[in-house]
Amino acid sequence: MASARLEKLTAALRAADMDALALNPGPSLVYTTGLHFHLMERPVIAFFTVNGDAALVLPGLETAKLDALPFDAQAFPYGENPAGWNTAFRDAAQALGLDGKRIGVETLHMRLLEFRYLQAAAPRATFPDAGQVVSALRIRKDAGEIAAMRRAVAVAQSALQATLPQIKAGVTEREIAAELVVQLLRHGSQPEFPFQPIVSGGPNSANPHAAPGDRPLQPGDLLVIDWGATVDGYISDITRTFAVGEIDPEYRKIHEIVQRANAAGRAAAKPGVPCAAVDIAARKVIEEAGYGEYFTHRTGHGIGMEAHETPYMRADNQRVLEPGMAFTVEPGVYLPGRNGVRIEDDMVITEDGAVSLTSLPRELQVLE
Amino acid sequence: MASARLEKLTAALRAADMDALALNPGPSLVYTTGLHFHLMERPVIAFFTVNGDAALVLPGLETAKLDALPFDAQAFPYGENPAGWNTAFRDAAQALGLDGKRIGVETLHMRLLEFRYLQAAAPRATFPDAGQVVSALRIRKDAGEIAAMRRAVAVAQSALQATLPQIKAGVTEREIAAELVVQLLRHGSQPEFPFQPIVSGGPNSANPHAAPGDRPLQPGDLLVIDWGATVDGYISDITRTFAVGEIDPEYRKIHEIVQRANAAGRAAAKPGVPCAAVDIAARKVIEEAGYGEYFTHRTGHGIGMEAHETPYMRADNQRVLEPGMAFTVEPGVYLPGRNGVRIEDDMVITEDGAVSLTSLPRELQVLE
Repeated sequence: MASARLEKLTAALRAADMDALALNPGPSLVYTTGLHFHLMERPVIAFFTVNGDAALVLPGLETAKLDALPFDAQAFPYGENPAGWNTAFRDAAQALGLDGKRIGVETLHMRLLEFRYLQAAAPRATFPDAGQVVSALRIRKDAGEIAAMRRAVAVAQSALQATLPQIKAGVTEREIAAELVVQLLRHGSQPEFPFQPIVSGGPNSANPHAAPGDRPLQPGDLLVIDWGATVDGYISDITRTFAVGEIDPEYRKIHEIVQRANAAGRAAAKPGVPCAAVDIAARKVIEEAGYGEYFTHRTGHGIGMEAHETPYMRADNQRVLEPGMAFTVEPGVYLPGRNGVRIEDDMVITEDGAVSLTSLPRELQVLE
Repeated sequence: MASARLEKLTAALRAADMDALALNPGPSLVYTTGLHFHLMERPVIAFFTVNGDAALVLPGLETAKLDALPFDAQAFPYGENPAGWNTAFRDAAQALGLDGKRIGVETLHMRLLEFRYLQAAAPRATFPDAGQVVSALRIRKDAGEIAAMRRAVAVAQSALQATLPQIKAGVTEREIAAELVVQLLRHGSQPEFPFQPIVSGGPNSANPHAAPGDRPLQPGDLLVIDWGATVDGYISDITRTFAVGEIDPEYRKIHEIVQRANAAGRAAAKPGVPCAAVDIAARKVIEEAGYGEYFTHRTGHGIGMEAHETPYMRADNQRVLEPGMAFTVEPGVYLPGRNGVRIEDDMVITEDGAVSLTSLPRELQVLE
């Protein structure tokens, strides 16, 4: 194993008293190997042992990808007939001596498809959750990773600015989302977006996870746009809320409250404080303004290769923030059946504070 | 339960001797409920019992989605603190009397994340693979589904035609892929593509699952484009191979062979014959031409809500084709380190034969 990341992984497995790690396709596999596989009906597993051995079980027609591996690994390719797949897994488990061992798995990503092959290949092994072991490797972003996230923010912000002139009463959420997606690509996002943009106006904006619909925007609507780009495998995740023409004074008020909550959450973020402090600071502003029951979700989540990863900004999370951690601050107020507001920034903890990668204005902007 | 699909599901569970089904977010959940959830760190499970009861465990901030459910279901929402999630699963399992029962799961989609909550909630239950039970419900497409697939084919074909004039020597694979993605959206694809387009020229075209790179096209290259659109939740999946200027006579020859293999595979598709017949017919053409070892994958896969689903066109698959089944026919010849060809169509079995939804020319087209 040549890669510095794999040396860190080996040490982390040893510290967690695990003998090996089994990864299926996803961000952690990309992080450790650089290999991209579709998550499909043909199972793919990379094994890493504490001794520094590595092996991959994969479809024979994908073996060319291994030429790009930054370290040595044994390959166990299989053919198209699923009847032979168990053999490939068993051969890999035997070659690495995995039966009876503690093989860590990411429960968040591992499917029963791969897991049942693992169990059959190493029937006396145990499979503890290695999610924390792996996410601990990824949670402090290095300078290269932060630079990629900055590029992902720049692409997303430019794409929104190119979309805004086309937003007005009468345009549907779906039309806005389609235009924003085109602009994200034109401005340089990879087509693997972190998530499909949320564009929700009027009553739909009161649903934090709304999907864009066919309702045309109406004067008096709030409009929530939650979008992101992917650049060099790293993502951005931003939300801004707009007014369509003249709006109800209460909507203006909740926007102002959320804007203050966002600022309070960002101001609370620094090394040495728990994630909880960020959530509590943002939530306090909204609670004191009398809208606490309408802020129905945590204040933020980690970002990096994934749109949601550790650390999570929840009032119960005592995990301490460290330089290099990256996460969103995204308080919201959602008035059921009426309208909603969310303002979301992408933060990175520095040696002595925190910086917002996002720089679009947070003030309420009225689109006519 | 009001939905006809759920009545069929209930009957299928009974026939498979299962007491219940647990689905996590994905195409089968959309098929049975119409509900879209992100597959993320917050687990979501829908339970269906043979008695016709249904329940959903989901984040509290997603409960508004249940308003659109076409049948009655008990909701077990949970808050943001994961410490409470086990309780929501246990309450759901108790309400439906699931402990000790046979609860089917889709191993292809279910993650260990959700599965370990299920196990904790129903520790004496068993969890057989319900993949075949669920895919049997989805494998014969109805007229509405086929109409959606036709729209997805039309969008993909129009998008390629809009992209072709911009392809010439000097343009990179990545640039072509980016333009094709924009054109897919402009022509009406949902942004949730079935897969990211494969655009592979020259040596990269000899890798069936290549990712677009930064190599500019060169005269003499073959260019494989494998792309698809999503319309109303149904996908298309097409491949055509082009020549960039004058090409090696052998490349022209393998294109002609693959074109004949594609035609033979399509001609073999009809009700009552096994999937194997399609694979064998296409493979025979390539083997008899002396290139059998360079056709390294199965001839096709089912399509519908997913880019890969049952039935699979493999020589070992004795599953019999029935009207409404939809799948690809996509033979290829890949000369390692040199160039490759693939030609892929989307087929639907009819009462007395099969029809190709795809209609773009299959003859070798030379791009100058």
